[in-house]
Amino acid sequence: MNLWYFCSVKFLAEIEILPKKGLLDPQGKAVTHSMPSIGLNNVNEVCVGKFITMNIEANSEAEAFATAETASKKLLANLIMESYNIRIKTL
Amino acid sequence: MNLWYFCSVKFLAEIEILPKKGLLDPQGKAVTHSMPSIGLNNVNEVCVGKFITMNIEANSEAEAFATAETASKKLLANLIMESYNIRIKTL
Repeated sequence: MNLWYFCSVKFLAEIEILPKKGLLDPQGKAVTHSMPSIGLNNVNEVCVGKFITMNIEANSEAEAFATAETASKKLLANLIMESYNIRIKTL
Repeated sequence: MNLWYFCSVKFLAEIEILPKKGLLDPQGKAVTHSMPSIGLNNVNEVCVGKFITMNIEANSEAEAFATAETASKKLLANLIMESYNIRIKTL
């Protein structure tokens, strides 16, 4: 019998949060307009959002994903204006 | 002769910027301490950084990467306190 199966494992969750398409992104606009001043004329449509990483102890990748999703919905992202994307990696 | 070979292609650059390990991350600490209040006791070591996406017109993936790296170094990241990670995708 494999006892390890029941032990919780550490996962790394990477959460990307971006303003929803079509909504105002003043920071992204400002960065887009600054690009030519640093010599980059081939860049456009810059979007600026948040990147959050966290360690999660869970029994499975699905449980870790659910935890990261709860954190995103309840605390990290403003769902009216922002969308999130979660990646789970085993540590 | 394939003329398309010489035309510039659109790439999507995704840039993740995080505070360097060991440096102060007050936002991350605040989020870590808020986790139990939303019922998550299995989360720790939250890091909060920036996530930036941009469209880049370039002749190759390597050129797009170089453009994104220039933007990161000169404008987006504070290299003393932050580290960056770039992913390039073809649009």
